[in-house]
Amino acid sequence: MPEPIDFYFDFSSPYGYLMAEKIDAVAAKHGRKVKWHPILLGVIFQATGARPPTEGVSSRGRYMANDFHRSARFMGIPYSPPSRFPLPTQNAARAFYWLHGQDCALARRFAHAAYRALFVDDRDISSPDTVLDIAASLGVDRAQLAAALQTPEIKARLKDECDAALAAGIFGSPHVIIDGEHFFGADRLPQIERWLETGGF
Amino acid sequence: MPEPIDFYFDFSSPYGYLMAEKIDAVAAKHGRKVKWHPILLGVIFQATGARPPTEGVSSRGRYMANDFHRSARFMGIPYSPPSRFPLPTQNAARAFYWLHGQDCALARRFAHAAYRALFVDDRDISSPDTVLDIAASLGVDRAQLAAALQTPEIKARLKDECDAALAAGIFGSPHVIIDGEHFFGADRLPQIERWLETGGF
Repeated sequence: MPEPIDFYFDFSSPYGYLMAEKIDAVAAKHGRKVKWHPILLGVIFQATGARPPTEGVSSRGRYMANDFHRSARFMGIPYSPPSRFPLPTQNAARAFYWLHGQDCALARRFAHAAYRALFVDDRDISSPDTVLDIAASLGVDRAQLAAALQTPEIKARLKDECDAALAAGIFGSPHVIIDGEHFFGADRLPQIERWLETGGF
Repeated sequence: MPEPIDFYFDFSSPYGYLMAEKIDAVAAKHGRKVKWHPILLGVIFQATGARPPTEGVSSRGRYMANDFHRSARFMGIPYSPPSRFPLPTQNAARAFYWLHGQDCALARRFAHAAYRALFVDDRDISSPDTVLDIAASLGVDRAQLAAALQTPEIKARLKDECDAALAAGIFGSPHVIIDGEHFFGADRLPQIERWLETGGF
């Protein structure tokens, strides 16, 4: 049984969303499972000294806004630019890890729902209420999740996940690792497919 | 007759090299010509405030070194990491523009030869002698080109090309513009192909 593929992403990353819509199916075609790791790009950028790619260089920022949309069309994925962007995603990420402790398939459905809430329905997923609403729509007990999001344990869990991502060499979103080989960006999906097909090239 | 596609690149850019190996054939398939614009990323980065992507973040630098090589294999292009990288490329870029004034097909052959000298044969194309050797191997008069590279006119020409690139919104290499639509990175080649096929998507 091969090891699962690791998929690191921030819930505010448009290219992370595009990868999230595709990676499970691509992996499944080659008999592989995917382990999802929501992380906080703010923590990653602060630790590595990187700048958010959409900031600082105005021509690049304009390019990326157009490229998010065009790349989504190219990949056949619905996309609508969110009103608030970028935005903090610790509530969504903590909810994911808490749900994952209960039911990993449910956590996966939550991740898809949170990404689509932001990048299709323009909902502000930085808000705890929105995160709770999304989880509740999947049958999660709202009050229980609300309480869980306040615990030191879930905060420490997300911090540990970000530290582990840094230790694994993650510097952005999306970032996929297959048997030690790193792939950064939704545009590496064709290389990921060939890598899975051929076992490396 | 449609306008030519614009292709901006720095001679020290590995992804620029990968694009250079493909863009003419892709454009020709759709009846389009390509106008090549060597530029200096140092000038672009200084003007935009960007940092070289291989610098500053060590995990990203390591990733990119591997990705240059893997992307070349993926695209079926020979690639060998140069000993000196990155390196200044004003001599190669000025030689290109001077040759272009004489014979634009010759300038194109020079550009391919300079890129392959760096990324296949590990030659230091920052050296004026190496640039002259490459041009001489294509039948160019070495002394005439050596003299041309020292003129204020050719220095001003490259500066003007960098200014024009900035004005056009160029922030990195390779950068392709098709009828006003911008594509950044060798990994946008599949989107470029579909854009040319469909006239936009």
